[in-house]
Amino acid sequence: MNEVTTKWVYNFGAGHDEGRAELRNLLGGKGANLAEMANIGLPVPPGFTITTDVCTAFYANGSRYPADLEAQVHEALARVERAVGLKFGDATKPLLVSVRSGARVSMPGMMDTVLNLGLNDETVRGLVAASGDERFAWDSYRRFIQMFGSVVLGVDHHRFEEIIEQAKIDAGVVEDTALTAHQWEEVVEAYQSLVLNETGKPFPQSPAEQLWSAIGAVFGSWMNTRAITYRRLHDIPSEWGTAVNVQAMVFGNMGTDCATGVCFTRDPSTGENIFYGEFLVNAQGEDVVAGIRTPQPLSKLRAKPGEVSMEEALPEAYGELLRVRETLENHYKDMQDIEFTVQSNKLYMLQTRSGKRTAPASLRIAVEMAESGLISREEAITRINPASLDQLLHPMLDPNAKRVLISRGLPASPGAASGLVVFSADEAEMRSQKGEAVILVRVETSPEDIHGMHAARGILTTRGGMTSHAAVVARGMGRPCVSGAGGVAVDYGSQTLSAGGRMIRAGEVITIDGATGEIFAGYVAMIEPKVSGHFGTMMTWADDVRTLAVRTNAETPLDAETARRFGAEGIGLCRTEHMFFDPSRIGAVRQMIMAADEDGRRSALEKLLPFQRDDFVALFRIMAGLPVTIRLLDPPLHEFLPHGEHELAEVATALGVDMATMQRRAADLSEANPMLGHRGCRLGITYPEIYEMQAQAIFEAAIIVGEETGAAPVPEIMIPLVSSRRELEITRAQVDRIAKEVFSAKGKRIEYQVGTMIELPRAALLADRIAEVGDFFSFGTNDLTQTTYGLSRDDAGKFLPKYVESGIFDKDPFISLDRDGVGLLVRIAAEKGRQTKPALKLGICGEHGGDPASIAFCQEIGLDYVSCSPYRVPVARLAAAQAAIGTRTDRTA
Amino acid sequence: MNEVTTKWVYNFGAGHDEGRAELRNLLGGKGANLAEMANIGLPVPPGFTITTDVCTAFYANGSRYPADLEAQVHEALARVERAVGLKFGDATKPLLVSVRSGARVSMPGMMDTVLNLGLNDETVRGLVAASGDERFAWDSYRRFIQMFGSVVLGVDHHRFEEIIEQAKIDAGVVEDTALTAHQWEEVVEAYQSLVLNETGKPFPQSPAEQLWSAIGAVFGSWMNTRAITYRRLHDIPSEWGTAVNVQAMVFGNMGTDCATGVCFTRDPSTGENIFYGEFLVNAQGEDVVAGIRTPQPLSKLRAKPGEVSMEEALPEAYGELLRVRETLENHYKDMQDIEFTVQSNKLYMLQTRSGKRTAPASLRIAVEMAESGLISREEAITRINPASLDQLLHPMLDPNAKRVLISRGLPASPGAASGLVVFSADEAEMRSQKGEAVILVRVETSPEDIHGMHAARGILTTRGGMTSHAAVVARGMGRPCVSGAGGVAVDYGSQTLSAGGRMIRAGEVITIDGATGEIFAGYVAMIEPKVSGHFGTMMTWADDVRTLAVRTNAETPLDAETARRFGAEGIGLCRTEHMFFDPSRIGAVRQMIMAADEDGRRSALEKLLPFQRDDFVALFRIMAGLPVTIRLLDPPLHEFLPHGEHELAEVATALGVDMATMQRRAADLSEANPMLGHRGCRLGITYPEIYEMQAQAIFEAAIIVGEETGAAPVPEIMIPLVSSRRELEITRAQVDRIAKEVFSAKGKRIEYQVGTMIELPRAALLADRIAEVGDFFSFGTNDLTQTTYGLSRDDAGKFLPKYVESGIFDKDPFISLDRDGVGLLVRIAAEKGRQTKPALKLGICGEHGGDPASIAFCQEIGLDYVSCSPYRVPVARLAAAQAAIGTRTDRTA
Repeated sequence: MNEVTTKWVYNFGAGHDEGRAELRNLLGGKGANLAEMANIGLPVPPGFTITTDVCTAFYANGSRYPADLEAQVHEALARVERAVGLKFGDATKPLLVSVRSGARVSMPGMMDTVLNLGLNDETVRGLVAASGDERFAWDSYRRFIQMFGSVVLGVDHHRFEEIIEQAKIDAGVVEDTALTAHQWEEVVEAYQSLVLNETGKPFPQSPAEQLWSAIGAVFGSWMNTRAITYRRLHDIPSEWGTAVNVQAMVFGNMGTDCATGVCFTRDPSTGENIFYGEFLVNAQGEDVVAGIRTPQPLSKLRAKPGEVSMEEALPEAYGELLRVRETLENHYKDMQDIEFTVQSNKLYMLQTRSGKRTAPASLRIAVEMAESGLISREEAITRINPASLDQLLHPMLDPNAKRVLISRGLPASPGAASGLVVFSADEAEMRSQKGEAVILVRVETSPEDIHGMHAARGILTTRGGMTSHAAVVARGMGRPCVSGAGGVAVDYGSQTLSAGGRMIRAGEVITIDGATGEIFAGYVAMIEPKVSGHFGTMMTWADDVRTLAVRTNAETPLDAETARRFGAEGIGLCRTEHMFFDPSRIGAVRQMIMAADEDGRRSALEKLLPFQRDDFVALFRIMAGLPVTIRLLDPPLHEFLPHGEHELAEVATALGVDMATMQRRAADLSEANPMLGHRGCRLGITYPEIYEMQAQAIFEAAIIVGEETGAAPVPEIMIPLVSSRRELEITRAQVDRIAKEVFSAKGKRIEYQVGTMIELPRAALLADRIAEVGDFFSFGTNDLTQTTYGLSRDDAGKFLPKYVESGIFDKDPFISLDRDGVGLLVRIAAEKGRQTKPALKLGICGEHGGDPASIAFCQEIGLDYVSCSPYRVPVARLAAAQAAIGTRTDRTA
Repeated sequence: MNEVTTKWVYNFGAGHDEGRAELRNLLGGKGANLAEMANIGLPVPPGFTITTDVCTAFYANGSRYPADLEAQVHEALARVERAVGLKFGDATKPLLVSVRSGARVSMPGMMDTVLNLGLNDETVRGLVAASGDERFAWDSYRRFIQMFGSVVLGVDHHRFEEIIEQAKIDAGVVEDTALTAHQWEEVVEAYQSLVLNETGKPFPQSPAEQLWSAIGAVFGSWMNTRAITYRRLHDIPSEWGTAVNVQAMVFGNMGTDCATGVCFTRDPSTGENIFYGEFLVNAQGEDVVAGIRTPQPLSKLRAKPGEVSMEEALPEAYGELLRVRETLENHYKDMQDIEFTVQSNKLYMLQTRSGKRTAPASLRIAVEMAESGLISREEAITRINPASLDQLLHPMLDPNAKRVLISRGLPASPGAASGLVVFSADEAEMRSQKGEAVILVRVETSPEDIHGMHAARGILTTRGGMTSHAAVVARGMGRPCVSGAGGVAVDYGSQTLSAGGRMIRAGEVITIDGATGEIFAGYVAMIEPKVSGHFGTMMTWADDVRTLAVRTNAETPLDAETARRFGAEGIGLCRTEHMFFDPSRIGAVRQMIMAADEDGRRSALEKLLPFQRDDFVALFRIMAGLPVTIRLLDPPLHEFLPHGEHELAEVATALGVDMATMQRRAADLSEANPMLGHRGCRLGITYPEIYEMQAQAIFEAAIIVGEETGAAPVPEIMIPLVSSRRELEITRAQVDRIAKEVFSAKGKRIEYQVGTMIELPRAALLADRIAEVGDFFSFGTNDLTQTTYGLSRDDAGKFLPKYVESGIFDKDPFISLDRDGVGLLVRIAAEKGRQTKPALKLGICGEHGGDPASIAFCQEIGLDYVSCSPYRVPVARLAAAQAAIGTRTDRTA
């Protein structure tokens, strides 16, 4: 086999730049950006990067390096020596290097940095001579032994700290800086003894051995437990590997004309366009973060009394840094996080990368960069993580506030809330009417609890997942919610909850953070959300770009108004059953359920009709000019009966039915698997009078609003749980007949559509036939996910979190649409549906309608709209815009 | 538009035969066979058939006939006149005709027959002259008026009977035959007055008007309510239409050298190859069925004392009939049902059709015809309805026994049984141990009831469908079962059931018929099944032909042995959880469930290991040399805990656990939708120790049997409820690891396979990836149907029967595989699976494995085997043979 020489080593700096930013996969983020900075003329100390391919080859090959690596490293090192005029291991003018890991993405858990490599008992004396600073040289040597000893040789770093502490006690001084050159020399001796004792071998004196050991430690750390865990949690394939960067040392600790610092090109907390960072004179990198000395501000303007800014201390280097800042932002077109060192008044760049930032900062930076012309609006749109918009719309815990964490659940609905613990919906309502803030704590919630959820500031449940009833309803209402907090035990009897070894009684205060799932005892201070003008600007830009319409899932006028304010373009899912739980209606609903025959049901439904009509009138008014999709009754009837013996007796009394009859009916209605039971259109077919009443209410309401406004709405009536063409045909015929009757009674006609949910695999597979009798499809991906996976949303809490955590499922399929399975069915249904009717309107109304990844999928398969809960509307608008851009990019590719 | 003349009328008889048997769709069954008989030289009175196309055109065209029909009928009638030398409406030599309906399939509910058409006040005198028999002529006339009056004019037929009764009273005679010509003439007058009074019009005298009215009545009856209902129930499209047959009359009632009769070419009850039928001298067709005179046997051999056989009475015609019998069987190659008339010693054939027969007769006829070379073996195979084999294997109610029907449920498991009513499984077991026959009556059954179901002679439930727990288990055990008998109210408290207005107490006797769903009070006499040699012959032939293997679903040695006896070629589904319910094991199972940690679970599983190993040893011995597919634990753990408070307390005591802990665990385990819950491989992943124990038991058992027999079985270990490749990969790795451990401990290796159920839509859609890590697929179409339809088998009883009855679903998808939806997923999975592994073994183990239509589908998509409950094995063998023949026929076509 002819072996072609592979390039394992890439040089950078001193005019010999072989890498660039685009080679991030090969060189890692740090290496690629060092090369890039050198490329654009910034002052980067020369060095070289050993590629990630070496890491891959190393592990593929029984932890052996490629045969020709050593020669390539040797050659690269020689180049660095020539560039800086020093020599690795030279007794008089020794070259020192740093060795750093650098994967494709920043990854905690791996070996980070070894500085000053190349020092030994001989070269340290060369450094004394070369720098003319004995103290600096011995300090550098002890730093090297300390770093190398802990990260490469595995000696506990506390043991090194103890030696310094002892030295300071012996010297009678408090600060490291007070130790003399001689004292540091003693520390070095003590360090070497420590290493010998701990490892059984003397500290390595050969610089080459030092270098290869450090390189090996970087590669070895790729496979340590912490790194593996991190990769698993962040979906990083182990094949990516890490690179190793070897770079000539520059010293920020060689005197008062030296310094080291870190900074952001804009304020990472607010996004304001000001230079933001800190530095230390006469220090090495780790001193800035160690917190022993207080870092100083960069600009004079930001210096508080007593502080000395870099602008004042090192004006020349500061001026250079300002130019670098501008160069980097113009080049990278993003806010940068920079590390630098000043040696003898000369600035050196050690790292640049895209800076982490808060959600408000992200928004402001993107908008301002686009407004200044640095990036395009489309680019600005792609810069924002849509999910982060949630942070902008809800109160957050003050990051500086004290807190007592007692447990943790799932981050089910974002926002933070504090309040008195209550254990029932009724008490939540009662106390909230008295003006008290309450947190409703339940094992799980059911539709009977909705009034209490509305009344509460936040909701905590101990069972149920991200898509349990509590989670879905809370997101819909914009209430913070922590669900499935298995570590919290609720005892309704004694009205207490216990968690984290504490017992909390009803009426005591807790705080929940629905964005993190954390639960705290007592109050925690909050920051109220401020929606900036940048938010509005970004939304406008997003709306200009996106092609998917964004509707909302809403039943109440409040939800509908909220959604309109957030920019919803209609209602994609109005769940009429939610209207049935209102105390003014539930009586008639139950009367209908208990009726012995159709006449009895009809007379109960008669009572419901005016309520339903008023509901629809209100929604049509709010959504004037916009489409409103109304799903006819979906849940099985037993959901409208209470579960407890006592409550059932109350209902029996209220209806004038004897308890035995009541119990018999409840038993008749009970189901082994309600999710797969007598619901949806199956109810509409068994009890046609229910859908007839609902259709009548819809048509009458539309006519009323039409007369008020002169422009009648076009209701889209949606039949749930269809599995066959015939079911839709039958229920549609019912609706059409009622339409005719209402139009003839009122002497008016309105436009309307009748369509169906596609929420069963069979419906998706037979979508071509179903489309023959439907005007639109709305993908009910919650139920479609349940049936496609054979996975009950209500019961998945017992194993789904483990499945996701251990990577059996990539993601919780109730949160992000499963493209391979559920998505395939959606795709099949969309294609088959449009085969029958090319203009068939297609939307999605499951929880996925508010999930950015799922929205991208909806764009990809050509849906017309997504529908999500009101507070997710901005997220969906932005995600839809990103999806549109993504698609466009793909097309031009 | 150029109109091409359509042929609406087809002649037959007298050497002018335009039809043939293959034109059944156009000419109806009766018309096609009359033409066919004439074609092969049998004596058929001449006539013509008006095609089914006329019926279709008639209804498509606002109840108007095609313009050229009249001319075609006129011409055909003229031909008949020429052939018989008579003239329609002629005063001296009148032609009389019969008018009969004849659809593609025989269809009750339609107008049947009008005889003697063409008679009026004038022609009747011609008939007197022509026949020389005045009494015959007037009798014929009154018969005509009676038939025409009731079926064409709609006069209640009782009114005609009353007139005859009055005439006999007036004449002082008892029998019709005693009335004189004159008295019949008076009856004719009275009939005519009746018709005038009832219809307001005189009885039509014009033969042409009579003919067209009769034709119109036949077409009209195609759309009467009874016919429409019949078509709906039997899936007959209304577009098929009916034909009308007009045929020259021959008279069996013109004297003692005349006769009429019906017969079967073989005994329709036993299938014996003897001529079977009856006749009446001097009678017209309806006299044989009217029951006033006693029909006589055909052959002398069969005549009882006092009876006069046709062989004796009309030896010439009888000889001719014997020749006809042979001709017809040789021609049609099937047992025929014949109608004939003898006029003046000459035999005329009026009808032949394939004869209805019992299941044993069907089997015997097919086998004997094949053995005699009349038909091929393959043809014999297709002659048997596989479902009818059930009748041969179970006791049946004596059709002549008296019975008191009290209610009706679903025919859930065939066979009949009588026994004392008991309401609990424990009592069933107790009483049956005392030797009493019991019927277990439950609202529904659960796995806890299995011992009682075994002990009972039959099972009756008031809830649940054809595929409820009770139905599935009963079929598996071969126990008769009626399920979902909604009309039966069970009160466990008072130990009574009420149905049909009766109350029946525990200990009283009922009888159920699982083949019809009927429930009777008291004992009903039974016929025990006799399995004839023909059955074995047919099965051997079927086995020679079929390509699908037939396995069984079995867990117990008894089931496995039964299935072997019925010819099962291995086990396709051994549900290991059924083994867990045994009283000797359930304690350890519950201990496992209640264990606080893995160690606790492991020590409980340790106790189960020897039981499981023994189970598998027993099965492997019975299935020596055959494949055994073992499904690892599938149901959610809560299925192993009792439901009642009291039973739970007992379990708590038995386990030494306090009741609060017990209840908490039960509550923890309870699920909203167990079907979609924490079960299948989800359990195996959460509690790997369970699958590990099961795998260990399987491997150890296989090694034991291997050592015993020298040929170890090849267990096929099946992982349930897989929805992703990763789940199978993980659980398979567990099994493989245990295999290694057992092999190394025992110093022996055996072959084994690890595969998966495909029972979730997602698994079907991703079958290509799943096949990468599985050795076989078994389609679990029960659960796949539940998830594809979003339809809980346990809850479907509330609306599914109505859905099927009203045609919303063609068939109950739990009984017969839904080809369009579920079947499409199965097909996709089979194709994708074999894309990855061309030799992937594919089987089906849902209830559909025993359903002939579903088996045909399995053949079509190339599965390797079906697996069904033991008593369905013969059905499956025959259905598989038919499916193989069907496929072959398709190929040669």
